[in-house]
Amino acid sequence: MGQKGFTLWFTGMSGAGKTTLAQRIYEELKHKRGLKVELLDGDVVRTNLSKGLGFSKEDRDTNIRRIGFVCHLLTRNDVIAIAAAISPYEDVREEVREMIGRDRFVLVHVNAPLEVLIQRDVKGLYKKALAGEIKNFTGISDPYEPPRHPDVVVNTHEETIEESVAKIMRHLEERGLLTPVETGVPGV
Amino acid sequence: MGQKGFTLWFTGMSGAGKTTLAQRIYEELKHKRGLKVELLDGDVVRTNLSKGLGFSKEDRDTNIRRIGFVCHLLTRNDVIAIAAAISPYEDVREEVREMIGRDRFVLVHVNAPLEVLIQRDVKGLYKKALAGEIKNFTGISDPYEPPRHPDVVVNTHEETIEESVAKIMRHLEERGLLTPVETGVPGV
Repeated sequence: MGQKGFTLWFTGMSGAGKTTLAQRIYEELKHKRGLKVELLDGDVVRTNLSKGLGFSKEDRDTNIRRIGFVCHLLTRNDVIAIAAAISPYEDVREEVREMIGRDRFVLVHVNAPLEVLIQRDVKGLYKKALAGEIKNFTGISDPYEPPRHPDVVVNTHEETIEESVAKIMRHLEERGLLTPVETGVPGV
Repeated sequence: MGQKGFTLWFTGMSGAGKTTLAQRIYEELKHKRGLKVELLDGDVVRTNLSKGLGFSKEDRDTNIRRIGFVCHLLTRNDVIAIAAAISPYEDVREEVREMIGRDRFVLVHVNAPLEVLIQRDVKGLYKKALAGEIKNFTGISDPYEPPRHPDVVVNTHEETIEESVAKIMRHLEERGLLTPVETGVPGV
């Protein structure tokens, strides 16, 4: 019995697929496996943690540290925390990894080439950013530093969502953070 | 087995004894009883959650909602959250109670008359506030609304710390949030 707490942290540019993957993994862990898990993403974070913060490096760092702190509290009490945040800067991501503990932190780089993201542009944000209507837009007018030490990289322009989810779940099992589910198939 | 999560929220003016009591209860639950418990107080909150917030009603409300949100996440994952914050406004305290759920929220009013607090003045803050050197100081130049529906009131000018701690622990046991500890004395 007794689940292990850990933090599953999705980093990547807008539109890369962080939220979609975070939600899929959340559903898998929460509803299929019945584990204690919290999803810190989008509106939840904006409403409850980041209100008043902007897009300067300092404000972005404060936001990431704050989400990291909450993940830390959950993780050390054996709850699984899933965070999806652009988190463009290497130094603060690594600071969060240290705070939570390297063995309890899983960094997933949700990757796709910028041209693919500009093509997808689900929310129309890249168009506005390219037109100069949004300042400090990651990948266009603000930097995105790809993680130097990701635990998992998912290339969402080449993999289906199912493939990416499976890759992440496999990593969590191999790390001993999740117990593999019995397949129920004899001899397998 | 399986502890129940709840939030123990200390409200009261500066110097009333919130931190002292919160720490004592934290020690009791964490180290004597081996429960999962987090203490959100003072520096922890200032560093990790409230950075950049001031003392306007709006900023104070944001601070309280944010602490409340973290308590909510912990509580619903069966962790005990202890918060010590002046939290001077009735409406936001009640909002937090609703968010967390009335049956999982315990509001402790840490009370002492203002003249006693001015006499104690451990940090020298009342002196500065009375001299006008600190603006928006609760009880002097900013309101403190005593809770209309506290679950426990401790009068720290009339009770010892041990008495206040015992009163709070008894309430938690009577509410069924904590299991009474076996005394080990036969026949008692």
